[in-house]
Amino acid sequence: MNRNSSENRSWMDTGKSAGERADLLLAEMTLKEKAGQLNQKLYGFRIYDRKGDTVTLKDEFYKEVENCGGLGALYGLYRSDPWSERDYENGLCGEMAIKLYNEIQKYVMEHSRLHIPVMMSSECPHGHQALDGYLLPVNLAAGATFHPELLRKAYRVCGSQLKGMGAHLALCSMLDMLRDPRWGRSEECYGEDPFLSSNLAAAAITGLHEGGVQVVAKHFAAQGESTGGVNASAARIGEHELREIHLPAMQGAVKAGVRGVMAAYNEIDGIYCHANRKLLTELLRNEFGFDGIVMADALAIDQLDKMTGDGTVSAGLALRAGVDVGLLDEAYSHLEEAVGKGLITEDEINQAVRRVLKLKFEAGIFEHPFVEENMLPEFSYEEYPESLNLARESVILLKNRENSLPLENAGSILVTGPNADDIYSQLGDYTPPVRENSVTTVYQGIHKQYPEAEILFAKGSDLTETTEEMLLEAEEKAEKCDVSVVVLGSSSSRFTAADFDANGAARLSDHLYMDCGEGMDRSELNIPEAQMRLFRAVRAKSKKVITVVIAGRPMIINEVEKESDALLLSFYPGPCGGQAIAEILRGIVNPSGRLPVSLPRANGQLPVYYNYKSSYQAMHYLDEKQSPLFSFGYGLDYTEYTYTGVKLEKKEITEEQLHKTGVELQFKVKNAGDREGFCVPQLYITDLQASVVRRVRELKGFTKIRLKPGEEKEAGIRIAFDELALYNCDMNKVVEPGMFRIVLMDQDRELWQGELKVTE
Amino acid sequence: MNRNSSENRSWMDTGKSAGERADLLLAEMTLKEKAGQLNQKLYGFRIYDRKGDTVTLKDEFYKEVENCGGLGALYGLYRSDPWSERDYENGLCGEMAIKLYNEIQKYVMEHSRLHIPVMMSSECPHGHQALDGYLLPVNLAAGATFHPELLRKAYRVCGSQLKGMGAHLALCSMLDMLRDPRWGRSEECYGEDPFLSSNLAAAAITGLHEGGVQVVAKHFAAQGESTGGVNASAARIGEHELREIHLPAMQGAVKAGVRGVMAAYNEIDGIYCHANRKLLTELLRNEFGFDGIVMADALAIDQLDKMTGDGTVSAGLALRAGVDVGLLDEAYSHLEEAVGKGLITEDEINQAVRRVLKLKFEAGIFEHPFVEENMLPEFSYEEYPESLNLARESVILLKNRENSLPLENAGSILVTGPNADDIYSQLGDYTPPVRENSVTTVYQGIHKQYPEAEILFAKGSDLTETTEEMLLEAEEKAEKCDVSVVVLGSSSSRFTAADFDANGAARLSDHLYMDCGEGMDRSELNIPEAQMRLFRAVRAKSKKVITVVIAGRPMIINEVEKESDALLLSFYPGPCGGQAIAEILRGIVNPSGRLPVSLPRANGQLPVYYNYKSSYQAMHYLDEKQSPLFSFGYGLDYTEYTYTGVKLEKKEITEEQLHKTGVELQFKVKNAGDREGFCVPQLYITDLQASVVRRVRELKGFTKIRLKPGEEKEAGIRIAFDELALYNCDMNKVVEPGMFRIVLMDQDRELWQGELKVTE
Repeated sequence: MNRNSSENRSWMDTGKSAGERADLLLAEMTLKEKAGQLNQKLYGFRIYDRKGDTVTLKDEFYKEVENCGGLGALYGLYRSDPWSERDYENGLCGEMAIKLYNEIQKYVMEHSRLHIPVMMSSECPHGHQALDGYLLPVNLAAGATFHPELLRKAYRVCGSQLKGMGAHLALCSMLDMLRDPRWGRSEECYGEDPFLSSNLAAAAITGLHEGGVQVVAKHFAAQGESTGGVNASAARIGEHELREIHLPAMQGAVKAGVRGVMAAYNEIDGIYCHANRKLLTELLRNEFGFDGIVMADALAIDQLDKMTGDGTVSAGLALRAGVDVGLLDEAYSHLEEAVGKGLITEDEINQAVRRVLKLKFEAGIFEHPFVEENMLPEFSYEEYPESLNLARESVILLKNRENSLPLENAGSILVTGPNADDIYSQLGDYTPPVRENSVTTVYQGIHKQYPEAEILFAKGSDLTETTEEMLLEAEEKAEKCDVSVVVLGSSSSRFTAADFDANGAARLSDHLYMDCGEGMDRSELNIPEAQMRLFRAVRAKSKKVITVVIAGRPMIINEVEKESDALLLSFYPGPCGGQAIAEILRGIVNPSGRLPVSLPRANGQLPVYYNYKSSYQAMHYLDEKQSPLFSFGYGLDYTEYTYTGVKLEKKEITEEQLHKTGVELQFKVKNAGDREGFCVPQLYITDLQASVVRRVRELKGFTKIRLKPGEEKEAGIRIAFDELALYNCDMNKVVEPGMFRIVLMDQDRELWQGELKVTE
Repeated sequence: MNRNSSENRSWMDTGKSAGERADLLLAEMTLKEKAGQLNQKLYGFRIYDRKGDTVTLKDEFYKEVENCGGLGALYGLYRSDPWSERDYENGLCGEMAIKLYNEIQKYVMEHSRLHIPVMMSSECPHGHQALDGYLLPVNLAAGATFHPELLRKAYRVCGSQLKGMGAHLALCSMLDMLRDPRWGRSEECYGEDPFLSSNLAAAAITGLHEGGVQVVAKHFAAQGESTGGVNASAARIGEHELREIHLPAMQGAVKAGVRGVMAAYNEIDGIYCHANRKLLTELLRNEFGFDGIVMADALAIDQLDKMTGDGTVSAGLALRAGVDVGLLDEAYSHLEEAVGKGLITEDEINQAVRRVLKLKFEAGIFEHPFVEENMLPEFSYEEYPESLNLARESVILLKNRENSLPLENAGSILVTGPNADDIYSQLGDYTPPVRENSVTTVYQGIHKQYPEAEILFAKGSDLTETTEEMLLEAEEKAEKCDVSVVVLGSSSSRFTAADFDANGAARLSDHLYMDCGEGMDRSELNIPEAQMRLFRAVRAKSKKVITVVIAGRPMIINEVEKESDALLLSFYPGPCGGQAIAEILRGIVNPSGRLPVSLPRANGQLPVYYNYKSSYQAMHYLDEKQSPLFSFGYGLDYTEYTYTGVKLEKKEITEEQLHKTGVELQFKVKNAGDREGFCVPQLYITDLQASVVRRVRELKGFTKIRLKPGEEKEAGIRIAFDELALYNCDMNKVVEPGMFRIVLMDQDRELWQGELKVTE
């Protein structure tokens, strides 16, 4: 501490750009201070004690500030969940969180020679994972809405809440593609399609930015391309598959101005993402133009030791590849050592530190390091209906025999099944403890929507176990009712008997209630047998069976689909999910969800997705049908839409025009039924003449249109260069002259087909 | 035909090299004649009519010779199977084949301006697919022998037979890796391991060469890396996975001097193999040093139209990529047109023609175009025991409760099950019709091996169907016997109710008896329920149940394994399979097969193989055990082996020494039991310090040692540069300094473990 630079604080000149300010500050820093900005080792939720309303910081916090000569970033201060063991008794509620944030920030700045503030990162997988966090349906449900604008609005609320508590960086799943439903983290994906995901990722980022926080988009890249659906396993794919399926979401995020990215645990074809310079630097920065920070995933840099056999080598490898900030790992505490050993240069450290500082300047933390107390509103679901709106549009009607739904009148309803009245099984993984009255279950929702009806309840079965008594109760009640609503599915609830890996993923154990979520990979996708016993028992005694599957992944529901009168699928719909589902049952809301992922018929049929390569027949088995049970884009409605005047603006277009204006598919759509609803016209292309193998279909445009009964609207979907481009053999992004088939679809039905010719 | 070059036949100077001769000949050829050398459009088995013993050529042959100005290659003249509809009634038997060959050759040479002979290509997937072809166990069974030397000898017999009939090129499956057992062509792979496959491929080639024919090794590349196990589907892998798993067999083939390669139907990461210049030219020729011809797979060039939308473009793309000779396709009839349109140059045509001509010179066809008649021996299985020897060593003993086997004495034996007495279900796919007396089924084998016992038979079940009567008969007979031998499994027999795709693959249909083989991909790997009903029924009535599974792919056999007293697995063991199995039952032969592929516990557990990446835990599911049922390398024995003095020659080695001499793992092994047998010591490595992700284990050496009771032998397994090398991030093949774990194993048991340090 020989140099005292506090006099010269040129970097505080707000007239300069963030980059210039970062350079000025960087020039004053010691290597130790620099390395300190790059590690993010503390588990934020473990650095305080709370007794009553008194919160005190623990020694490990002070020590780390000393070790780092300040503090670069702090992870998870507000985190609350079974892993963190923080709850309403001992965690940070409301004002406490803000006060502690301010205390931490003050201490860090005072103990940083150059007064560099700390940056707070906080999990926001589907709402802030903190006490009283405003929660949304999981990503897979958001995918089912096909409605980016709605997602943007919902994340704007989350962003406001995060900002109000002091968080600067929302860590937000949005880049993973659902390509193997055995994966426990399926629910964190927007679905199987890169175009849909890209649009939703951009919307979520925009919303969070509008709310006032920066975003770390995760995970980069190809984590959904796991071997066998096993978490964090090898993505064995080549570069075309990577670019076509797994990178578009990141490109959408970059377009939306995202400032942070989290590297993924997995390797891609032998190179760990955390050691992948081609991915994190050449592709992400040089080609896509990303200009923010790359953060490690929890303990992921230490995991490189499996390959290198040496922690310092791992740290050097990650930094050189382009990982700027660690997370919980030991490795990034040894960056100085890595420089000393010649594994990396100080210049490489500088580059990473500059990015961190730049982001802190951009986020305004230097100017506004503290949060105003007593200003945080209560983010109630009544006041902020965005979560409810998302839930409403996320529910997918898969079957409706003889208009069994809507169920506008019912004298008596049995509500049964493990997911009918279970708060946490409705919320998904990475959920904080919630106040009971903030969540509406399906059972509660039905109570509210059918005030005149007699509502009976029988749980009938737990997730994977049932008893004769439970089954008998359900049967008896089913016999007495006009209709049975059977609510089956999976659970990602960590609130029963979970213990955890060092990185917070739940660990397999015998007494676990959950069967989905991180670490909960399954080899069989069937609805568990206990639930099927309940279903069969109730089916046998019921006049009408409405089945609702609430799940975190595509499940095999062949029998349920066949035997139910109507079937709704709802990926964890969040706190307002029960209300949304009940409204749909009653017909107050018209279902408008579309499958964001295809549903397999059998475990042995995987992988199952609509956008497979035209080089083969997918699902071509001797012993199984050659199709999914339901394909991507499917979803029924209580009304009907008619399309007229569908046409391409032009049938031939030059590459240049394609770049400039693109071409629009134009149509009129009319609600021909007697209920208001949303249609979801989707534009697919097939490239018929190309130099590399294309896919049978690719979604390249969609819109969601609200129509009153009888109402007609004109609409258009524009496709331009990006939508018709491919990566050729040399990995150049080009549009190749030739024919393209253009198809307009909804509900997995073809509405129109034509051809577009692209000329040079 | 203006130029008459018959005077100047400088290329017939045998003092010159094949390459020089090819150049001289090429210089005299017209473009039409050149293009004619590259197409191989005729279905050889359709160009003749046979009435009684009179065989006549059809017009289409003469026309094609005229079109081509000769004939480059002729496919499948001798082919006999249900697709070709050639059998003992109307096909080419013995001398007829040779006479017709001579007639064809004479005609072609006389109608070729430059007297260029035709080259005959013939299928030899596991023996010549012709009438009276000498047949071997399928490749997967050969893999189970872990005995390349035995395979070499067996293929030497096949080679002699092919040569004697006039065939020049044996088309021989040997490059495909079994990575997804849903694939119907699993039986054509040597197994899941690249090192094992590489050694067996080299052995097969050497044997065929010794027999006197050239080899077209197929398929190149990565056909076993199918999406979903669907035939010819996309291999979505990256280059590391390609090089580590799928290319070593080809490298083994090149080392063995193979002169032909067939491109594979599939694409690899968006590039069809038939259009993949990097694969067929840069990798195969420039890097691996291959110097022969690349042949297309049947109709595969035409299939490029799916991508290009234009047949002439497809032809140009394939030729430019490196496909020299077509197969059955239309495209290569348009090569002149492709030159005319500027899609390819005449120089590119020349390069391909030169390779074809060079091979014809090398194969001696110019000097010896005709085959001597009346010289072909009868290749009986008694005279040539190589097929039997392979079968004996291919059978894998998976379970042997309380030494249930060998069954040295039995008063009465029930033999039951669909595969107990079915000739074609024992032979595998791509089999010609056979003379009944040339094949020994399990039932027949048991009859012969137990002359003193009462042998009862009940079929019990067809492949996928059974009746109460069939089950009852089996039960009643089981009750009367001392032991039941239940023979279950799959069938790749095309001899019942198959119809075919244009390329000869069987097509799915309702009345098919087969459930394995090309085109017969399955989503479920379980033993069909009908067979399980038989198994359970017999189990319930039997004192002892010995189960034999005869199959073409890994099947899920959990229940069978649990409930049987002893269990043998035999991948289609060929005509002598029944004898081999019966000898093993009786104890005349000691089983020495090892699993060439891991057996999954469930469909949802795929992919299942031992050599997965160390970056994750394979098979880590909530609802399933984290292991295969049996892993690669497993297989029991009737005796026991003890290993002593296991040690590495040195514990530290420089890269240079590794290149020069390598290092040997040395040991003594003793047969500690009272029966002669074979042990199969296997050396595995784990690279502990690397720059790219390595695998948990990799087979890098093995040997098979015959030991009499009490006998002890010294042995060694040498590992050198290739065995410790990896492809780094830049795809350079290097050995990286650092630690390697070396493990000696047999029967999936660790016998010894040590470390080897490699220094610079």
